[in-house]
Amino acid sequence: MSKLEDVGEFGLINIIRQKIENSHLKNQLPMGFELLLGVGDDAAIWKPSKADYQVHTTDTLVEGIHFSRDTFAWQDVGWKLAAANLSDIAAMGADPVSALITLGLATDLDVSMVDELYDGILECFSEYPTQIIGGDIVKSDQVFITMSILGQSNTFPLRRNAAQVGDVVAVTGNLGSSAAGLAILRSQDKDIFQELVDVHLRPIPQITMGRLLLNSGIKCAIDISDGLLADLSKVGYESGVEIHIHAGCVPVSKRILETNWPDYMELVLSGGEDYQLAFTGEEELVRALLKNSAGAIIGEVKKGKPGHLKVLSEIGTEMHFDKTGWDHLSTQK
Amino acid sequence: MSKLEDVGEFGLINIIRQKIENSHLKNQLPMGFELLLGVGDDAAIWKPSKADYQVHTTDTLVEGIHFSRDTFAWQDVGWKLAAANLSDIAAMGADPVSALITLGLATDLDVSMVDELYDGILECFSEYPTQIIGGDIVKSDQVFITMSILGQSNTFPLRRNAAQVGDVVAVTGNLGSSAAGLAILRSQDKDIFQELVDVHLRPIPQITMGRLLLNSGIKCAIDISDGLLADLSKVGYESGVEIHIHAGCVPVSKRILETNWPDYMELVLSGGEDYQLAFTGEEELVRALLKNSAGAIIGEVKKGKPGHLKVLSEIGTEMHFDKTGWDHLSTQK
Repeated sequence: MSKLEDVGEFGLINIIRQKIENSHLKNQLPMGFELLLGVGDDAAIWKPSKADYQVHTTDTLVEGIHFSRDTFAWQDVGWKLAAANLSDIAAMGADPVSALITLGLATDLDVSMVDELYDGILECFSEYPTQIIGGDIVKSDQVFITMSILGQSNTFPLRRNAAQVGDVVAVTGNLGSSAAGLAILRSQDKDIFQELVDVHLRPIPQITMGRLLLNSGIKCAIDISDGLLADLSKVGYESGVEIHIHAGCVPVSKRILETNWPDYMELVLSGGEDYQLAFTGEEELVRALLKNSAGAIIGEVKKGKPGHLKVLSEIGTEMHFDKTGWDHLSTQK
Repeated sequence: MSKLEDVGEFGLINIIRQKIENSHLKNQLPMGFELLLGVGDDAAIWKPSKADYQVHTTDTLVEGIHFSRDTFAWQDVGWKLAAANLSDIAAMGADPVSALITLGLATDLDVSMVDELYDGILECFSEYPTQIIGGDIVKSDQVFITMSILGQSNTFPLRRNAAQVGDVVAVTGNLGSSAAGLAILRSQDKDIFQELVDVHLRPIPQITMGRLLLNSGIKCAIDISDGLLADLSKVGYESGVEIHIHAGCVPVSKRILETNWPDYMELVLSGGEDYQLAFTGEEELVRALLKNSAGAIIGEVKKGKPGHLKVLSEIGTEMHFDKTGWDHLSTQK
């Protein structure tokens, strides 16, 4: 197949534009979104939403840091980038609307790579209606893909600075699966543990759950993709509270428990990339929201040093960890 | 000074947040923009604009491709990134509102680098009021910085698909200065030609001119940062017209003309990165708009093969070029 340098930027933009237009025909557009001019001009144009609030977020995947071509198909990279961005929208309780995508590409890549990448993005955006309205293409030896998503909401969105002393702390689903999936991808036995691998390659953004939380009166939530401890520490810091976590209450995939995974608690507490949400609220409300879900109450919000976490083991002793999550600039990980 | 890996992502976000908050106190905020939650959550939150149209664009600078540390201070990188994004907003005739910034950073960089980069961005955003509302920080061996800017307008924005047969084609200022400035930076004599170097390092986004064009009834404009010929070809292609250009009419800096610059016409027609606008419209209106400006009428919109350009020399003969501008994926340049 052709190399990117053969089709050039203009040719590639036309391929992408065609792909996006074809997907419109099949897919539902985001609610109330009136696009007037999409991919191909200096900027996209649309009519502003009638929603009361807009939200805006961005997330990036860099080859060699966030993914490797050995373990990811380009479709998976596309899905994961879309899901990572949608997860931030979900953490606000908002609805996604539109996306810009920047491709940093080496010129000797095959055009098929862009095709496959967009297949993955469009697959995710067809499940969680989001309209690609533009982007940018630049040359880069190290491949990176950046997405920014606009979202909207009629209620003041969920935020991380709204945890109240007395709230319980909950998560929306199993943690540690993505980190376990990555470890499996790097070793063997992929078939047996496909469901863990899938969480790493094709995480599910909690758009529906985020919307439910916001509509039910929850105020405080966060995307815990950097790891439970690191992200709950941010909630505590921004809300001016301390958080106590019962490690034994954190929901974990049966697959991990059944296999006597070594040090699995580290994956669960600090692995990250599960793209579940953590949230806080009154116990009764939280319990009702978690009914029939894989989520669970895992701790409480306490008075204390802002951002400080106390992690208690199943027998009530305090646990200590070196790594508290994925710091994107630390060299420890 | 500290390395990025020492302060970590969370520390760096706090440094950036503080810098942005300090700049708010000094600087004017964008018209009618009500930010409710800025840097530091999963997404920023604001009240949607009452403007009739929103626009959204993104642009990226990659080290080794778009800038080198030998020739750019980090402040210049910051300014140029902001100006490049604002130039896309200017090409729509819109007002900038808010920006997200993604930093792809090597961990062994000094924290001062981020400080200086933001100084340059904030300097540009204080001249052209734009609010930084969030972003992302990722590890990357090759440094890159991506920005996306939201803008707004009460009139349907300028676009590249609206050139009409019979229109004249104009540009808003001198072309070739940036490419000449880069050539100077790579050689010597910087002092003598500082004004050309400045166009390369600190281009001026044509926000004011873009707004004037839109308010005066112009429909068709484009940011010609990829080079005049490449970008006018896009106007022709999207509008379904042919464009004739009189090379001798393109405005050029006296500095270039005085020094008998070798092959200067190539810099002028294909150099790019001047961040001027090209636009089309009725001759009388265009002539009035260009009064007392460095801009000039340089050609006409004709019936013909969509995207085809005819470049005429000062004596009326047709000129031919190999390179028609900056293709971000081509290896020719």
